[in-house]
Amino acid sequence: MFPFTKNFADSVAALGEISLIERIREKLGSASPPAPRGMGDDCAVLGNAPENAQRLVTTDSVIFGKHFDENVPARDAGKKLVRRNVSDIAAMGGVPADAVLALVMSGDVAQTWLEDFFFGVAEACAEHGIELSGGDVAGAPVQIFSATLALTGFAEKPLLRTGAHEGDLLFVTGTLGGSIAKKHFAFTPRVAEGRFLAALPSGKIRACIDLTDGLLKDHTALLPAGTHAEFDFENLPVSADAHALGGNLVERVFCDGEDYELLFAVAPEFENELRERWEKIFTGTPLTRIAKIFAGTQNPNLSRKLPAHAHAFEHFRPKK
Amino acid sequence: MFPFTKNFADSVAALGEISLIERIREKLGSASPPAPRGMGDDCAVLGNAPENAQRLVTTDSVIFGKHFDENVPARDAGKKLVRRNVSDIAAMGGVPADAVLALVMSGDVAQTWLEDFFFGVAEACAEHGIELSGGDVAGAPVQIFSATLALTGFAEKPLLRTGAHEGDLLFVTGTLGGSIAKKHFAFTPRVAEGRFLAALPSGKIRACIDLTDGLLKDHTALLPAGTHAEFDFENLPVSADAHALGGNLVERVFCDGEDYELLFAVAPEFENELRERWEKIFTGTPLTRIAKIFAGTQNPNLSRKLPAHAHAFEHFRPKK
Repeated sequence: MFPFTKNFADSVAALGEISLIERIREKLGSASPPAPRGMGDDCAVLGNAPENAQRLVTTDSVIFGKHFDENVPARDAGKKLVRRNVSDIAAMGGVPADAVLALVMSGDVAQTWLEDFFFGVAEACAEHGIELSGGDVAGAPVQIFSATLALTGFAEKPLLRTGAHEGDLLFVTGTLGGSIAKKHFAFTPRVAEGRFLAALPSGKIRACIDLTDGLLKDHTALLPAGTHAEFDFENLPVSADAHALGGNLVERVFCDGEDYELLFAVAPEFENELRERWEKIFTGTPLTRIAKIFAGTQNPNLSRKLPAHAHAFEHFRPKK
Repeated sequence: MFPFTKNFADSVAALGEISLIERIREKLGSASPPAPRGMGDDCAVLGNAPENAQRLVTTDSVIFGKHFDENVPARDAGKKLVRRNVSDIAAMGGVPADAVLALVMSGDVAQTWLEDFFFGVAEACAEHGIELSGGDVAGAPVQIFSATLALTGFAEKPLLRTGAHEGDLLFVTGTLGGSIAKKHFAFTPRVAEGRFLAALPSGKIRACIDLTDGLLKDHTALLPAGTHAEFDFENLPVSADAHALGGNLVERVFCDGEDYELLFAVAPEFENELRERWEKIFTGTPLTRIAKIFAGTQNPNLSRKLPAHAHAFEHFRPKK
């Protein structure tokens, strides 16, 4: 459904700001605690941090026409906003805590569409125990719907992107490619898996990232200087949706993006123990060793497998 | 200056995301600490909270064509984004700490304009000791420049909007009205004043807010149910810019908005001590008693002083 309406009476402009915020709070329900912990004051006053935990923060937006379109239900768009941010917390091995949400939108956004959007936000917050502490609503001078979440979390020992060594193995959760079919708005952030990895014996999980722009671009963030990853192209975890969509499956796995799976570097001597421990807990989440880090910055095997036009996702490059 | 360029080579689209983020980090300089404390990982890992302090969070956006226009230098627009958020922390008596910044913008934003914007962000962060921990850049499908900051802070005893009583006095810092001339993008958030108020003997400063939408709308947030404020119209602190702009000065004071001053409720027996303490510290910041809270919800004196069309700021109401 389109977020916008031509009928003024159905639009957020007809509601005015105060009624609009009341409607939003209704839809958020228990995800929106009373002030000062929640909306209603100049700032939100947050709960205490758990002992020994480090504070994490991330921010991410969803924009109509960019991160979702009229084929995505408003409710799923709201869930996507929350889950995108949760995925970043998961990649650090953290637990999400509280969030603020800023809307930048034109006055012709439909009230019912926005209510459904916030219903999805509330559902995804409930799934992850997130309190929506506050927010802002700003009117845009052009037709747009954009929502930005800033999410905090906690982790005792955060997993960073840096720390991988030559000889480390790269593992990935779940399956990759074909997210355009559905997964890009219907994924489960790997919070439990991230927490499990962060709690493993120190130094065995060297580095971790969540796959958002696609494996081709994202895996390089884990590589130490002067290294490259040799992929095992026979054992890529190709998603069922990628198979159904067809085309070049290696390109789908590397370039489709929006997988929201965890990619992480493992000390090679820990491989067997990792697999044993994983299989006891995550029976529903595939774990696949897809690469090993080697010296040298060239990666001719990867280049050979991908079409010449294959490229990492660039937010501002004009679409082909 | 307009944020947008018709020359592709000068646009952010020509840079691509990675170079764009490098440029932004350059401009931010020391406001952008190294990862994982700053940009470069999935989340930022923040510093420890001060002991005995409560965590605050707020979020606010600036949009070209809405919160600033081509008459505002890009650098001042960047400062405005930070200062708007700092003003919310100040209204709680807090100290700002760290922030994340999300950009939603079209590919035709000019590189030089954006660099100036971030130069302003860096300056305002430096003024207030804020670390910019991370952010996000998303391409919008329509021509827009929008930036959203989520800012955290700390306060030992946060000043809330709730807590005022019948009989309390309303005081305001600085002068009001005429912000369109300059103040809306060139104000100093009242952080020192807010901290001073929050540290006064318990229960004497009952409630506090920062004035953003104008005194007419904002003062009602401090009123307990069943009360109204009787204003002293002879002693309103009218700004020099309001005088210069002319027109109905009472309307300017109540409806112009974007004053970014603190309005707070004071226990009446504390008035003299407040004035004595204030004058010793804040020689440059006027302090004015502008109203007293009385029983009854009607406010005929205020209605009589304002033109019939005067109204509170509504983000989505079509402009007159």
